[in-house]
Amino acid sequence: MEKVYEGKAKIVYKHQDPDKYILYFKDTATAFDATKKAEIAGKGELNNTISSLIFELLEKKGIRTHFIRKLSQREMLVWRARRFDVEVVVRNLSAGSLCKRLGIEEGKVLSKPLVEFFYKRDELHDPLLCYEHIILLGLLKEEQISILKGMALKTNQILVEFFKEHGLLLVDFKLEFGELPDGNIGIVDEISPDTCRLWDLKTGEKLDKDRFRFDLGDLTEGYKKVLERIQTL
Amino acid sequence: MEKVYEGKAKIVYKHQDPDKYILYFKDTATAFDATKKAEIAGKGELNNTISSLIFELLEKKGIRTHFIRKLSQREMLVWRARRFDVEVVVRNLSAGSLCKRLGIEEGKVLSKPLVEFFYKRDELHDPLLCYEHIILLGLLKEEQISILKGMALKTNQILVEFFKEHGLLLVDFKLEFGELPDGNIGIVDEISPDTCRLWDLKTGEKLDKDRFRFDLGDLTEGYKKVLERIQTL
Ligand SMILES: Nc1ncnc2c1ncn2[C@@H]1O[C@H](COP(=O)(O)OP(=O)(O)O)[C@@H](O)[C@H]1O
Ligand SMILES: Nc1ncnc2c1ncn2[C@@H]1O[C@H](COP(=O)(O)OP(=O)(O)O)[C@@H](O)[C@H]1O
Ligand SMILES: [Mg+2]
Ligand SMILES: [Mg+2]
Repeated sequence: MEKVYEGKAKIVYKHQDPDKYILYFKDTATAFDATKKAEIAGKGELNNTISSLIFELLEKKGIRTHFIRKLSQREMLVWRARRFDVEVVVRNLSAGSLCKRLGIEEGKVLSKPLVEFFYKRDELHDPLLCYEHIILLGLLKEEQISILKGMALKTNQILVEFFKEHGLLLVDFKLEFGELPDGNIGIVDEISPDTCRLWDLKTGEKLDKDRFRFDLGDLTEGYKKVLERIQTL
Repeated sequence: MEKVYEGKAKIVYKHQDPDKYILYFKDTATAFDATKKAEIAGKGELNNTISSLIFELLEKKGIRTHFIRKLSQREMLVWRARRFDVEVVVRNLSAGSLCKRLGIEEGKVLSKPLVEFFYKRDELHDPLLCYEHIILLGLLKEEQISILKGMALKTNQILVEFFKEHGLLLVDFKLEFGELPDGNIGIVDEISPDTCRLWDLKTGEKLDKDRFRFDLGDLTEGYKKVLERIQTL
């Protein structure tokens, strides 16, 4: 298979159909601008499986994504997208960079979900973008910003409810978006414990990548718990 | 005089009238979160004189400020304000932190003036705030954000024209706002070459605090040029 791009967590391969890509989920974990890095056996499979489940759910609920199907344990078949250079973060509770940036405590329930845009540029450390910066940089048109914000909030609604049903609290998550071959905007990349903060609803145990970031315990143990919960549909 | 607060560039003193303060302009120059620091004879006087001139102009043009009058070479009498914990930056050309943050070149003319809000918290390094963060932190109400943005843009219009008439290019500047004793919102603090980027319209010479930040030449020489130009009304 011909490699298109190798990122921190995945490899993107060409497909015989030029409108499709194959995403290969690696076992590499990175944090803090990739200054912390490790190989964690099983992570790739878990993220591919969890992501595939979530994309299926979103599609069923009417949210457009790049997902076509899970090809193998580590591979996902997706629609090739013209990816927008933004990361969209939705937050229900304060955590992570929001706390650090603004000096607020972790775990405060936000009065309503907060949508933040970041510039996807590793070398700039993914800086925060306000509406005006997105326009200035020409990353999105005004209507596209609204569409992404709307899709992000709808996705949040769906996922908060879904995870809650399975005893999990969705604290925050990151989405990427792109223009799919048919011209529609869809969610791309992955939605997994690498890109979501998920806490056990009862115990508060962190089951996401913060385990790796802050050495809170075995990573795959957390991800496995997430998968076990959401699989019991 | 009883000190209320000593900051990086000024000292705030109480006045016999509890609705007023005296701002004393120090000679201290700081940059990069005060990691760079120096005493520069003459700076305090220059900033007080330039600031006073600009506040007079703005008041004449109908922009409310805290300015009452210049008391002495280093002292300004102002209305005491309930200061909002935001710094409002207006940019006409790219420079400074905008360039660093977003990886863009210095000196690009922006298609329209950009207004940015920052959280005035030294220990957090004054992080960028989008509309939603300002509300989340309870720093301003929705209508206040609009008022500040409107006043900042109007001030920009006035100052761009004013400086241009005197051969100076207003690249960007920082404003602080507060609620004045009569309940109105006004510009507080200072407007000086410490808080504005001012370039010579013809030569491009930098006449502002960037001289200190990047060792571009004698600081007061630049500030004196600014004062000489704008005094010849
Ligand atoms: N459907 C898609 N079309 C095009 N690019 C995609 C698609 N899905 C994901 N990508 C991109 O492929 C890359 C996946 O690899 P990853 O390891 O996440 O990279 P990175 O280190 O840049 O985050 C990312 O750059 C992601 O934005
Ligand atoms: N009219 C006013 N009322 C209340 N506070 C003011 C007024 N004008 C300026 N200030 C505040 O007084 C301080 C001036 O000192 P400065 O050296 O600029 O402090 P800092 O290091 O905090 O920027 C600032 O905190 C500024 O916000
Ligand atoms: Mg990625
Ligand atoms: Mg100050």
